[in-house]
Amino acid sequence: MNTTPINNAPLNINGERLWASLMEMAKVGPTSKGGSRRLTLTDEDAAGRRLLLDWVEALGCTWQLDEAGNIFIHRLGKDETLAPVAIGSHLDTQPLGGRFDGVLGVLAGLEVLRTLHEHDVETLRPLILVVWTNEEGSRFAPAMAGSGVWTGRLSKKAFLNAQDSEGISVEKALNASNQRGDAPLGQPRLDAYFELHIEQGPILEETEKPLGVVTGVQGIRWYDIRFEGEAVHAGPTPMNYRRDPLLAATSFIQAMRDEVSKDKEGRFTVGDFRVADPSRNVVSGVVTLQLDLRHVDETRLSELDVRARQLAKIAAEHENVRLVLKPIWHSPVTPFDKDLIKTLSAAAKARGVEAPMMMSGAGHDAVNLSQVAPTAMLFVPSRDGISHNEAEYTSPEHCALGAQTLSDAVIMWANR
Amino acid sequence: MNTTPINNAPLNINGERLWASLMEMAKVGPTSKGGSRRLTLTDEDAAGRRLLLDWVEALGCTWQLDEAGNIFIHRLGKDETLAPVAIGSHLDTQPLGGRFDGVLGVLAGLEVLRTLHEHDVETLRPLILVVWTNEEGSRFAPAMAGSGVWTGRLSKKAFLNAQDSEGISVEKALNASNQRGDAPLGQPRLDAYFELHIEQGPILEETEKPLGVVTGVQGIRWYDIRFEGEAVHAGPTPMNYRRDPLLAATSFIQAMRDEVSKDKEGRFTVGDFRVADPSRNVVSGVVTLQLDLRHVDETRLSELDVRARQLAKIAAEHENVRLVLKPIWHSPVTPFDKDLIKTLSAAAKARGVEAPMMMSGAGHDAVNLSQVAPTAMLFVPSRDGISHNEAEYTSPEHCALGAQTLSDAVIMWANR
Repeated sequence: MNTTPINNAPLNINGERLWASLMEMAKVGPTSKGGSRRLTLTDEDAAGRRLLLDWVEALGCTWQLDEAGNIFIHRLGKDETLAPVAIGSHLDTQPLGGRFDGVLGVLAGLEVLRTLHEHDVETLRPLILVVWTNEEGSRFAPAMAGSGVWTGRLSKKAFLNAQDSEGISVEKALNASNQRGDAPLGQPRLDAYFELHIEQGPILEETEKPLGVVTGVQGIRWYDIRFEGEAVHAGPTPMNYRRDPLLAATSFIQAMRDEVSKDKEGRFTVGDFRVADPSRNVVSGVVTLQLDLRHVDETRLSELDVRARQLAKIAAEHENVRLVLKPIWHSPVTPFDKDLIKTLSAAAKARGVEAPMMMSGAGHDAVNLSQVAPTAMLFVPSRDGISHNEAEYTSPEHCALGAQTLSDAVIMWANR
Repeated sequence: MNTTPINNAPLNINGERLWASLMEMAKVGPTSKGGSRRLTLTDEDAAGRRLLLDWVEALGCTWQLDEAGNIFIHRLGKDETLAPVAIGSHLDTQPLGGRFDGVLGVLAGLEVLRTLHEHDVETLRPLILVVWTNEEGSRFAPAMAGSGVWTGRLSKKAFLNAQDSEGISVEKALNASNQRGDAPLGQPRLDAYFELHIEQGPILEETEKPLGVVTGVQGIRWYDIRFEGEAVHAGPTPMNYRRDPLLAATSFIQAMRDEVSKDKEGRFTVGDFRVADPSRNVVSGVVTLQLDLRHVDETRLSELDVRARQLAKIAAEHENVRLVLKPIWHSPVTPFDKDLIKTLSAAAKARGVEAPMMMSGAGHDAVNLSQVAPTAMLFVPSRDGISHNEAEYTSPEHCALGAQTLSDAVIMWANR
């Protein structure tokens, strides 16, 4: 057993082996255009998990399933009384998912274990590779459910009772796919949690950076907004007699976009916008829209919340329509652990890579984990910013660089 | 037979009798909230028509159905070689229609016939009361179909083959409801066509005028507009990397509303607006909308057409999305006959009523008739501007004033 201080002689991961594993995993639940379909707790998902377990068993690792079907793979450390350092992500996919979202994080963890095994190196602290159940939320809502219930942010009842579109519950699906274990939720206490993930956005690619260190997750506020006016005929009703909710809604959207665009970090999305009883020559009486506001700064997000309410009110009053604005969700800005962030940056730097600090716009299991353990993430570029799509792509070089930096940081941290 | 020149001693119609007939007709196909449901060529529609025919037969009038089911009711004039003067409108209703839309025009015509009959007066020219088939277009598209096919603006084939939602054709429905006749379309040549109708808008009520003389119908232009951008996730994608078609569409709507509002006569309606694959936290890739532009001045309507194309293009370019703009219909401004307009104004004035000149915003059978005969219309107020609704209401006094003015003008014209 090699006991050389690992910081002085970093182990090189095998990028080709990682890529080959990614491609082999992608064949489990393959789609016609080169993606994967492993909806959570289906036979395909179970087959993907089984493939991973075959690989880790060959490394002498042990594993167990918890009550939520999360898989905890254990690699012994020199001192098993110390809290383990965890690497995690997910293997489930969207219905027409890609080969990298989640999968890269898990198989990069596998590559860390393989590299240690290959060099016969034991870390001071034990390592854990976690596969979280139902990160995607496509089959069962909500998303990030396995990590949510493990960290106590989602109730066990809500987790188990969630049903898919055919009325099958998570509980039933856990049993049917043989993924239900008996390890207790929330155990063991983790010394740290690391996650490598594809960016799912365009920033790294556009700025030509191969790697990003994620310092936290944007805050999010969701609203349901309804403007109620009066349905009248397009022809006989002059503009000044109308109470047109569509004009209020569109003017609100423009005003809110201007407000959010005052800095570069605000994000403003209306992904759902509907007119009631749509008809070409009738002013609709009711328009509903769903608003998604995000910002990396919680103070600014609070300002945007105030402004959204003001601007919606102004737009409604201007068109003489009624406003119903319901805030339905608020996820505050989540900062990651400063020491882990430093460790990831140092690992990148030691490999000669400039990795910018960035905030994540999307939710990840790491957001849940950050509530119970020091947590940080790495991002690698997504081609064209595309994910949740068969066309999702991250190059072999970027996958390897992400896994190498993850490996260096995890080993450094586990040996400190 | 009274041969006194009618201009010197105007006949008074009976407003109570007119109101009683309106209320009796409303009971044919009654709705729970006091409206009527007589969808074209249904049993209810046929029953409403039968009730009218009972009334006119009692006056000694004859009638015939043409090939489109339009009813032509004939009252003899002194000189049957002269072209007849026609009064017309419709008895069919919207699914939850009111008691006045169309019905008032027909029963005011009936009241003219009854008044002449009561006073034993014969006009110089024969009179015709027309009930047009399928004005509403609710069961079979398009609207104004009976007058459309009669005037040659709609082909006989298109008229007969139109199907309702159950696949029943107009041809089949005409036979099934026993409304198909053999009188040829387009016959006889009309000396003039008068139509009294509820305004279906708020102007008369808001300006406290009991009557309006309609000088023509607004021009209308319809467009299908599509903005195509890129579907991306709300979180990871900064605003400046997005190609959000919703932002283009809403900015276009605001710009177009500003343009149309430069004068008081422009009307701008987006009654249908859809985002593809709506989802709260995803920027939709495609937004479609239907645009309805109207103006009383054809030159300005042409300008608005040019501006709509420019502003849509500017909005698309600003958001870096693709624009597909299809003009799908253009109905030019339709002026009514100057001499008939003068006659209606003189008739109102002679009764001490100030009737403002106004343009119609909605289509009416009169628009079709104006292509083949001198045509004009009268409007009476609609309470709250409401129509196509069980709550539609015009007061007995306004109904009577409309019928009286119609009667005076028609008799004046038929005796000239």
